[in-house]
Amino acid sequence: MERSLIEAIAAELELTLRPSRRLVRGIGDDAAVVRSGGALCVTSVDAMVEGVHFRLDEDVERPIDVGWRALAGALSDLAAMGARAGEAYIALGVSPQGGETAALELMRGALELAAQAETTIAGGDVVASPVLSACVTVVGWAESESELLARDGARVGELVGVTGTLGGRPSRPLPRLREGQALARAGASAMIDISDGLAGDARQLGESSGVCLQVELERLPLAEGVIDWEQGATAGEDYELCFTAPPGARADVERLLREVGGAQATWIGTVTPAGPPGGPGAQGVSLRDPQGAEVPLRGFEHSW
Amino acid sequence: MERSLIEAIAAELELTLRPSRRLVRGIGDDAAVVRSGGALCVTSVDAMVEGVHFRLDEDVERPIDVGWRALAGALSDLAAMGARAGEAYIALGVSPQGGETAALELMRGALELAAQAETTIAGGDVVASPVLSACVTVVGWAESESELLARDGARVGELVGVTGTLGGRPSRPLPRLREGQALARAGASAMIDISDGLAGDARQLGESSGVCLQVELERLPLAEGVIDWEQGATAGEDYELCFTAPPGARADVERLLREVGGAQATWIGTVTPAGPPGGPGAQGVSLRDPQGAEVPLRGFEHSW
Repeated sequence: MERSLIEAIAAELELTLRPSRRLVRGIGDDAAVVRSGGALCVTSVDAMVEGVHFRLDEDVERPIDVGWRALAGALSDLAAMGARAGEAYIALGVSPQGGETAALELMRGALELAAQAETTIAGGDVVASPVLSACVTVVGWAESESELLARDGARVGELVGVTGTLGGRPSRPLPRLREGQALARAGASAMIDISDGLAGDARQLGESSGVCLQVELERLPLAEGVIDWEQGATAGEDYELCFTAPPGARADVERLLREVGGAQATWIGTVTPAGPPGGPGAQGVSLRDPQGAEVPLRGFEHSW
Repeated sequence: MERSLIEAIAAELELTLRPSRRLVRGIGDDAAVVRSGGALCVTSVDAMVEGVHFRLDEDVERPIDVGWRALAGALSDLAAMGARAGEAYIALGVSPQGGETAALELMRGALELAAQAETTIAGGDVVASPVLSACVTVVGWAESESELLARDGARVGELVGVTGTLGGRPSRPLPRLREGQALARAGASAMIDISDGLAGDARQLGESSGVCLQVELERLPLAEGVIDWEQGATAGEDYELCFTAPPGARADVERLLREVGGAQATWIGTVTPAGPPGGPGAQGVSLRDPQGAEVPLRGFEHSW
C-alpha cells in the first residue's frame, strides 16, 4: 500500500516544490538535510501506531519499550546519515483505553533512551487518539556535507558491511549513532539503517546507488537464538546499519568502530554491476545461499 | 485531560533533561528554539486526528482542507515566535476508510499552503492508522534571539493587540508569518497564536508573563457573520496572533503591519498587575463586557 502512496506524494512534491536554497537533500534518503548558518540540520520523522507497529493488548509490549523503540527508530535514521543526535520532538496520541498512564509510560521510555543517546527532548504535542501513538521527529547536526553519508554512494567493487547482529528484535535497541559517525569518518561510501530488515533495506541502498549488493547469507551475523538466515535477513527493527566501503577503507572501518566502543562490523558481501531487471543480480540486492543460488527474501516496507 | 499529562511530562523532563548548550528555549512556548551554527532553529509539532480535530464522515470537512489546516496550525506557532518559515515534515496516518485517496488529498492541502507560505515540505512518514491523521513538524529560522518573541515578555502598562478578525473559523486560514515577523521588528513584547481561542490563549500569555491582560470584549474585531463576543473570544483555529506592545511601539506596529501587506492589528486592551488568585483581574486574562464586568470564558485546551 504505502509505496504507491509515497510515490504519489513524491510526484506531487516534484510538481509543487519550491526551490529551496536551504534544502541539501529531501525525500528519498533516511533523513532530510537543510543548511542553516554554518551547520547542517538533519531531520527525520517516524510514527508508531498501536495495532500497526506495536500491540498493548495481552501485554505483548509495554508502553515504556514502545517509547524507547519509537525514539530509537527515528534516531537510527540519523545514525544512517552519520549525523550527531540533537533534539527530539514527540507528538503523543493518548487513547481512551491506555489513557494518560500508557502515554506517560511511553514518554518515559523515550526519555530513558534520550538520556543514553545524548538527545534532548525539546517539545512535542499531546492529542487524543483512538489508539496510543507516537510521532517522533528527530533533529541531528553535522558541520559539513562531507561528514554525511547517503544511500546512493555505493560503487562497484566495494565491500558490504553490517553493524552488530541481525534478527534479534531487541526490545530496547540502541541506535548506532557513534557507529554511523565512525563509519562516515572511516570512508564508508553509502549507508542505510536496517529498520525494515536487511533484505529490503539493502535493496533500497542498491537501487539508490544503481548497483547490486551481493550478500552471502552464511556470513550474516545472526543474533543469539536466531537460527536461520531468513530471520536474520528479514526481521525488522534491528536498527543496525548496512553500509558499503571501498576495500582500502576496511582497516579504518574496523579500527574506528573499535575506537568508539560500539558494535563491530561484519563484512557480508560485495558490490557488483546491476544485472538485467528481473534476473539474478538485478539492481538492488542479491541474497546468495552457500551454493551461490539467489534466495528471494523481502523485508518490511513501511517507512518513507 | 491533557494539561495534567503535559505537566507530568514536563516534570519528567525536568528530572531527566540533559543540559544542552544548543537548547535556547524548550517546552512552554509556542515552539522550541535551538542554536545551530550562527542561526536559530525554531521547531513546533502539531498533530491532527480524525474524530478529534476534524470529521470526514457526513462530509463535514474535506481532507484537502484538513491538510491545509494541519500545516497552518504548526506554522502559526512559528508566526507567534516571529520566525521565518523553513521546512515542514509530515507524518501521514492512512486509515482503512479514507485510504490512500484521503491521505493524498490531505497532503495536497498541505502542499497548497506550503507553496503560499514559503515552506518546503522536506520529508515525513507514511503509516497505517485506524483513522486519518497528520503529524506536522515545522522548522523556522531566525538570525538571533532578538528577532524572536516569547509568551513571557508582557509588562504592566502595555497594550494588547490582535491581528485580523476573530471567530470566523476559516477553512483555509493563512498563518500570520509576515505579521509575526513585523510585530517582532516593531517592538512587540510578547506573542501567542490564537489556535485555542483568544480567551484561553491570552490567559496563557498573561500567566507566562505574570500579569493580567485586561481585554475589552466590545473591541474584539469579529469576523463577518460572528455576532457575539463569546464566539469571537472562544472560537479556536483562528490562527491570528495576540500580542502585547509598549504604547510607544503602537505607531511602529501599525506601520510595519501595513508595510508587509497582511492582517491589520486591533488594540483590545491593556496589561495590568495581576490581582489576587481567583478574584477579578487575577493572573492571566480578564475579559470585560462594556459595563466593566468580568465575563468567564475559556478557550479550547488541547495544545502543548
